[in-house]
Amino acid sequence: MAHPLFEKHQELLQRALEAIRNRGYWSAYSENPKSYGDDAIEEGRRAFSAYFDAQFYLDQPGVMGRVNAAPSPYGLALDISYPQCSPDALISAAKGAMPAWIRAGADTRAGVCAEILARINACTMEIAHAVMHTTGQSLMMAFQSGGPHAQDRGLEAVAQAWGEMKQVPGTALWEKPQGKNAPLRIEKRFTVVPRGVALLLGCATSPTLAAYPALFASLATANPVIVKPHPAAILPLAITVALARQTLKESGFDPSLVSLLVDDSGTPVAKDVAVKPDIGLIDCAGRAEYGEWFEENARQAHVFTQKSGVNCVVIESTGDYKGMLRNLAVTLSLHSGQTAMTPRTILVSSEGIKTPEGTYSPEQLGRDLSLAISALLEDNARAVEVLGAIQSPDTVTRIDALRELGAESGQILRDSSPVPHPQWPEARVHSPLLLRVEVSDRQLYMEERLGPISCVVETATASESFAIAERIMREKGAVTFSVYSTNPVMQQLAEDVAIRAGVALSFNLTGGLFITQSAAFSDYHGTGANPSASASLVDAAFVASRFHVVQSCRHAG
Amino acid sequence: MAHPLFEKHQELLQRALEAIRNRGYWSAYSENPKSYGDDAIEEGRRAFSAYFDAQFYLDQPGVMGRVNAAPSPYGLALDISYPQCSPDALISAAKGAMPAWIRAGADTRAGVCAEILARINACTMEIAHAVMHTTGQSLMMAFQSGGPHAQDRGLEAVAQAWGEMKQVPGTALWEKPQGKNAPLRIEKRFTVVPRGVALLLGCATSPTLAAYPALFASLATANPVIVKPHPAAILPLAITVALARQTLKESGFDPSLVSLLVDDSGTPVAKDVAVKPDIGLIDCAGRAEYGEWFEENARQAHVFTQKSGVNCVVIESTGDYKGMLRNLAVTLSLHSGQTAMTPRTILVSSEGIKTPEGTYSPEQLGRDLSLAISALLEDNARAVEVLGAIQSPDTVTRIDALRELGAESGQILRDSSPVPHPQWPEARVHSPLLLRVEVSDRQLYMEERLGPISCVVETATASESFAIAERIMREKGAVTFSVYSTNPVMQQLAEDVAIRAGVALSFNLTGGLFITQSAAFSDYHGTGANPSASASLVDAAFVASRFHVVQSCRHAG
Repeated sequence: MAHPLFEKHQELLQRALEAIRNRGYWSAYSENPKSYGDDAIEEGRRAFSAYFDAQFYLDQPGVMGRVNAAPSPYGLALDISYPQCSPDALISAAKGAMPAWIRAGADTRAGVCAEILARINACTMEIAHAVMHTTGQSLMMAFQSGGPHAQDRGLEAVAQAWGEMKQVPGTALWEKPQGKNAPLRIEKRFTVVPRGVALLLGCATSPTLAAYPALFASLATANPVIVKPHPAAILPLAITVALARQTLKESGFDPSLVSLLVDDSGTPVAKDVAVKPDIGLIDCAGRAEYGEWFEENARQAHVFTQKSGVNCVVIESTGDYKGMLRNLAVTLSLHSGQTAMTPRTILVSSEGIKTPEGTYSPEQLGRDLSLAISALLEDNARAVEVLGAIQSPDTVTRIDALRELGAESGQILRDSSPVPHPQWPEARVHSPLLLRVEVSDRQLYMEERLGPISCVVETATASESFAIAERIMREKGAVTFSVYSTNPVMQQLAEDVAIRAGVALSFNLTGGLFITQSAAFSDYHGTGANPSASASLVDAAFVASRFHVVQSCRHAG
Repeated sequence: MAHPLFEKHQELLQRALEAIRNRGYWSAYSENPKSYGDDAIEEGRRAFSAYFDAQFYLDQPGVMGRVNAAPSPYGLALDISYPQCSPDALISAAKGAMPAWIRAGADTRAGVCAEILARINACTMEIAHAVMHTTGQSLMMAFQSGGPHAQDRGLEAVAQAWGEMKQVPGTALWEKPQGKNAPLRIEKRFTVVPRGVALLLGCATSPTLAAYPALFASLATANPVIVKPHPAAILPLAITVALARQTLKESGFDPSLVSLLVDDSGTPVAKDVAVKPDIGLIDCAGRAEYGEWFEENARQAHVFTQKSGVNCVVIESTGDYKGMLRNLAVTLSLHSGQTAMTPRTILVSSEGIKTPEGTYSPEQLGRDLSLAISALLEDNARAVEVLGAIQSPDTVTRIDALRELGAESGQILRDSSPVPHPQWPEARVHSPLLLRVEVSDRQLYMEERLGPISCVVETATASESFAIAERIMREKGAVTFSVYSTNPVMQQLAEDVAIRAGVALSFNLTGGLFITQSAAFSDYHGTGANPSASASLVDAAFVASRFHVVQSCRHAG
């Protein structure tokens, strides 16, 4: 008999799986704030504020102490404390919860996961405020990206996992002819079993979006998940874990299947936990060195990483120079370049950019792009909406260091400056820094610099631009590759580079689509084929590597 | 337009995929020798003999010298030499062949792979003789296991890979509504790209069966494959590679997509090649330490290993004591225990084995099993058919060492002795050795000993038998777990152990099915969930981890 939650969500799962298979536009959760109620934003703010000056409630085992939330990038003190539990107690509880979750089967697990997502969706606005005040995203971006977009990615993972598991039948009758004798009749059973306990390491810049695919892929494939948020972005995942535990409990399962492990930046626990023998899966979103540590040291686990990279733009020609400038200005400004998809290095050849109205030199492009960014950010209210706040003080330090470097060598195309926030006077808001970098200054344009920092590099020819982009993306990794060219030969060259570098390619974005946007059910986020990520969200390997199949057989009666 | 080879084999691929999804009995290639022609065995022998006293022809680049074949375990001198090519030349040629193979797409690649299998199937009897005279398998086993069973596993891998790749559409139109404005229309393309060059390390005991899943999974997912056979078992894979290259060439592709890399035991090349940056996949079947070396050192590649393990049998009760003895006797004797599926350790509690006619003590079981083995092997012609020859002289050394150990402590239940072969006087044939081992002698029954060696261990209770089996299988790995019990409570316990140990479980095999037999399209060989193997043949992860998806997008016209 089907579990009621599978019956409730079966159609949704089926629809999501169809969307994954055809990759057209589809979304399960609305990105229109009005869909959440006329007063949703305000209600969300109240729910969010209710966590202040309080202990976050989670009935987890092994409580050893409490950890306090970091202050908001907007200057708001988040006076919330979280229970700090012993990793061994969480692992032990997770293991105890596993057998019943295995026996529940793929349909029930998928149904329960979809229900968790439904409840997360109902708390979208509350989570949006929590995302805003941990990541620095503007409220609208925190809502869309941290709400429905993250939830869509979560559902995509559930559906993809469900699809892969459903390809394994529960039972089979194997009947082999034996010539004149009666056939051999063997009854077989197949059980999807998890890899172990999953450890999910959250990131500071998109805590829900980066975590939901792994959380739901692991849980749907029967792995209990220990969620360890970045110390600067606990609340969004704490709310998520609380909702998951409540849903599991109400649907008859052990809430220990999902638990929260917190630490602070002074005493990090991730590395200690990651090498424990019971940990079978690790998902990690963060800096390259951080991800590589787990890849190299947590040998008992299958490790999926989303690391940093140096995304490139090659500009060769365009049919819409102004549209290109507008699109790039938004792309470089959005959330102050603090996403894994933001371009870092823009390559233009000294032959210039061919357009219907003539050729623009690299110098001209540098000036025009600077002006386009300034025009975009002219209105202060709009500027803070686009830029959001800078998540980490380290990023501000990085901007300052590069400003100094640029001032010395006279390479600043557009200077960064603090931007006052009309509502949050203490918010860390800084406008984008655009540098001109010599092609010989490799260490400048071949390093990822998270934040509102990008470089224009002048090359000798368009072919050199592609060659440098390929080298950067293969050596340093990249999630996005943006090419402006109206020339079919150059487009073919770009396709070849993208395939060799294993990077998603976008051509001639001049309208309302930005390369920093990745759509669940349609776009693969990352490929796993270059150093920026060992996983692709959400491809078959991302879910299929999380489970094994154990069979049993006996003579059929 | 579909490639002619896809049109030719599409129905077969579809049928294979259906079989994989329902896991009932199905086979693409006949295991009846008569299907290959009345004189097939003799024709195969002639084709096999034609390789003698000659240079094996392969038009590969970078030839540096030649390597000679090892002599047959049956005493036949295989006077064949193989071209030894520079690994870098093979890698370089493979990389050059890759772009066109990527562009060919999933359908064409699957069609070409199915055609290679068809040509291999047409050479089944020739390959059977080659397998016999490299592995020591009897001709009938070499035919079935090295022929149709290996080919079925190859086709299973092609179909599974094809199914996973076909879930990624080639193109999509993403059309997102924009309220009152015109929708955003984005055209997307998705390309399956390989991980890199695949290195396939063959084994000595089942060169084709162990290699075909990886060979065809990699090739179908666009990875060129360098096949490095075990120095003792080159010919079966050399014939395979030659057929693959010829098929590729005739269907318009670069034969360098599949190449043969040979070495001899004195100057092994696998480890040097495995760490080269272009190697993206490694498949390795062999001893535990060998497989672990690649897992630990070839960090740039995704490594799939089939290693050794200690398969266990727990006997608690049976409804057919004699049938059980017959089944176990065959199981322990087949190919002299030189398969990854052969049981090593038989656990029986001192409470005895409950049967309808009374309880048998562990001592009685030891005696009865010894007698059953001797009865099976009484007839010399039948004995050599069942036992085949011992592949490696090391295995004979191992038998001798354990005979000595057993003689000292008086624990030999059934002694091993040389068996004369009526046709091949120099053949290495030895009958099975059955030891009685104390439960305290862990180092004896917790180590894999490839060959005709097994232990009966007496435990205190059936629960202790299961506990020891679980410990052995989790620590040392296991591919099979055979349980004799008519008690539903014990059966449930066995199922729980199998799930925790990640091992395939068989209940009460007393008839014509043996645990050493694994059926393509129905059984998963290995789970990837314990130390015996990091891969399961052929699950979704085995194929999905071999490719990435790269997308490109642009505004739709």
